[in-house]
Amino acid sequence: MSIESAIAGLQTFLGNRLNRSKSDLAAHGGSETHFPPMLPDAVAYPESTEEVARIATLCTQEGCPVVGWGTGTSLEAQSLAVRGGVVVDFSRMNRLIQVNAEDMNAVVQPGLTREALNRELRATGLFFPVDPGADASLGGMASTRASGTTTVRYGTMREAVLGLQVVLADGRVIRTGSAARKSATGYDLTALFVGSEGTLGLITELTLRLHGLPEAISAAVCAFDDMKGAVNAVIATIQSGVPMARIEFLDTASVRAVNARSGAGLPERPHLLVEFHGTPAAVAEQAETFGEIAAEFGAAGFRWSDRAEERNRLWEMRHQAYYACLALRPGARALVTDICVPISRLAEAVEETAAEIAASPLEGPILGHVGDGNFHAILLVEPGNAAEMAAAERLSGRMAERALRLGGTVSGEHGIGLGKLGYMASEHGPAWQVMGQLKQALDPAGILNPGKLVPPAAP
Amino acid sequence: MSIESAIAGLQTFLGNRLNRSKSDLAAHGGSETHFPPMLPDAVAYPESTEEVARIATLCTQEGCPVVGWGTGTSLEAQSLAVRGGVVVDFSRMNRLIQVNAEDMNAVVQPGLTREALNRELRATGLFFPVDPGADASLGGMASTRASGTTTVRYGTMREAVLGLQVVLADGRVIRTGSAARKSATGYDLTALFVGSEGTLGLITELTLRLHGLPEAISAAVCAFDDMKGAVNAVIATIQSGVPMARIEFLDTASVRAVNARSGAGLPERPHLLVEFHGTPAAVAEQAETFGEIAAEFGAAGFRWSDRAEERNRLWEMRHQAYYACLALRPGARALVTDICVPISRLAEAVEETAAEIAASPLEGPILGHVGDGNFHAILLVEPGNAAEMAAAERLSGRMAERALRLGGTVSGEHGIGLGKLGYMASEHGPAWQVMGQLKQALDPAGILNPGKLVPPAAP
Repeated sequence: MSIESAIAGLQTFLGNRLNRSKSDLAAHGGSETHFPPMLPDAVAYPESTEEVARIATLCTQEGCPVVGWGTGTSLEAQSLAVRGGVVVDFSRMNRLIQVNAEDMNAVVQPGLTREALNRELRATGLFFPVDPGADASLGGMASTRASGTTTVRYGTMREAVLGLQVVLADGRVIRTGSAARKSATGYDLTALFVGSEGTLGLITELTLRLHGLPEAISAAVCAFDDMKGAVNAVIATIQSGVPMARIEFLDTASVRAVNARSGAGLPERPHLLVEFHGTPAAVAEQAETFGEIAAEFGAAGFRWSDRAEERNRLWEMRHQAYYACLALRPGARALVTDICVPISRLAEAVEETAAEIAASPLEGPILGHVGDGNFHAILLVEPGNAAEMAAAERLSGRMAERALRLGGTVSGEHGIGLGKLGYMASEHGPAWQVMGQLKQALDPAGILNPGKLVPPAAP
Repeated sequence: MSIESAIAGLQTFLGNRLNRSKSDLAAHGGSETHFPPMLPDAVAYPESTEEVARIATLCTQEGCPVVGWGTGTSLEAQSLAVRGGVVVDFSRMNRLIQVNAEDMNAVVQPGLTREALNRELRATGLFFPVDPGADASLGGMASTRASGTTTVRYGTMREAVLGLQVVLADGRVIRTGSAARKSATGYDLTALFVGSEGTLGLITELTLRLHGLPEAISAAVCAFDDMKGAVNAVIATIQSGVPMARIEFLDTASVRAVNARSGAGLPERPHLLVEFHGTPAAVAEQAETFGEIAAEFGAAGFRWSDRAEERNRLWEMRHQAYYACLALRPGARALVTDICVPISRLAEAVEETAAEIAASPLEGPILGHVGDGNFHAILLVEPGNAAEMAAAERLSGRMAERALRLGGTVSGEHGIGLGKLGYMASEHGPAWQVMGQLKQALDPAGILNPGKLVPPAAP
């Protein structure tokens, strides 16, 4: 029973779709953020659910770790094989299986990316809204319960996934959910697997809820004198019930970064980026209400984008903000924080965070999906500089404590991976042990993404 | 180790809040529908989470079944103590603990009913939308993943519950979720407990998502020449993306029933009952779009209700429809079916069902939350008439098969209880066994609502 004998067994049916080349191990051994590389022993490229089931069965027999891999864009090292073993790369399972336009859903394989899905949907009048920025795989997005700029209106992957096909550790293949819009038949296994970061099973198929493309879309940017005004405008907007499609915050440092990268030419002040979806009349009414609220909090310099190209540029700029911030300090790596608090506590959460970063030796632009109460500080650290890394971890820890003190969560959307594991006990208390019991029930050999999410198994 | 010794132990700390009177056992041994009475051995009335935890701990030690009880209005006998033991009645834990108006949530005890909550919220401008008809307890609604007339707009209890406090079988008290609008920190335990029908834990506190009372509300009824026209109007409306707040169907028999009970004076034809929420302009626009679509499918006799009293009468009539249908045949009991299909298959699901009921010896009015693809046939059966009961079960079984064949679910909202247990294997396949494994992990002694929801434990 060993990793090596598992790999030998996998080779018998995967052939050259089991890769052990140095370059491929390296490509599947890194992350987008500050975590050091951790190489798997092999990378598997299955082409069917049956192959994934054979991988799981064999790896359970051999006690070999199995770690799912979509596009490698997760930010907390969810896909790093911390105990070696096999990374299962789903890039060859990337088909759009079916679009059910009348029921507004699509059935996809886990390796399909969200942008590829939306390209395929273009002719249908439908779209898939969840938008974490990166062109992530849909299986990965489900596994990490991803969300993003449109979540304030359309929800996270929790709301977007109607059903799953999942391969369990012992090779059983199950289906969860149905194509109906609701069901009251037993435990919500769909919700249990969404966000489980590959520790309970490997997702091999997803049924996703789609939405009709809005008849009208309008977007805008506006600037505020200070952070407080911008954040309070968000709070008032959400509380007013305007169905915002997007409402994003960039602090002054983030604006400076996107100006430098995209030539956006925004005034160097805190900004909100907003979008409205609906009928032309509804969009006009929403925009007017938002404009009035924002003006009360000192918004100025409104720039409206009703044309698709302008809007695409706007959101492309937003999506590039992470890389833009990284470029503020050439060569730096980022520790990206991700707290989410009840909307009533957003102003104090952002302001306390900004003050602590200002008092630290680090740069840390703040931006985020403030309509959900979710924001990030991108803490820029020189690789190998232990003092800076310690300062970043201290700031991140203080943010996590702040989120919990204010009734929130240590991760709004990036998940746990390696970066947030240390906060699970304080966020969940004895419920964390319950997660461990569920893991133990479904994966007693502990082969699925070991070292992640649940408490270390008792020796 | 016995039920009797458990009861003796409970008496030491519950005193006269542990009741064994015949009348109280009978009051907690029946259901609203056709199931025969099944009496518990005692009824406990805890007043705190700590007392619930002591009940669970003791009952696990003694192997005594524990069954939660809210208002007893579930339709599939979820709260019947099929193996005796202790029914835990939450009526003394019915406080509204806190309203966080700025964050649009409320913290409640499980025994609070939805109507009581909405009365308490009156001054806040907020409301709790989930509306199963009965004035059910919020703990019971969470346990059965209830939904109802407003689900097409506001979702089910899956969307409404932000977090829970739960007592586990072994007496541990955990909290799930947070007050933030989203989180990506581990398994979605909230969703796991919602809909688990008391088999995984006893809910002792809920944090519920509230919504702003719409600025404008408008409701309407309209009649169609035939069922097909009404159902196709629903399908077209949902597919058009109009954000309906309610869209309910009553067939001719249901209309006859509500006319008889409420003097509604509706023409004896299939009807849709609809409601729109939003700003005045948005409501007017939605109503116009719906009116155009409905007219295409032959709608006539629109009656609009913009005044609150008229609307309240309309929805009171809808909520009384179950009792109105029962009264079509004095003395009858009902077997209530509850299938939910993808919206594109709704017309064939309703029409096939209606044809089979027409060809059967039974009366069975059809009505439901058609905007979700969910509808009910209320099969009227003479108590003790085995042939009629067999005919009703045959029709119900055929509906369940139909739902599954069309990609739907055997229960949109009433849940499993005793009535749908026989369909779990066909709906979920091997995933049903996974539910059993989760149950085994959290309640190895099997004391929580035994005989429900999960596969019978291996001997």
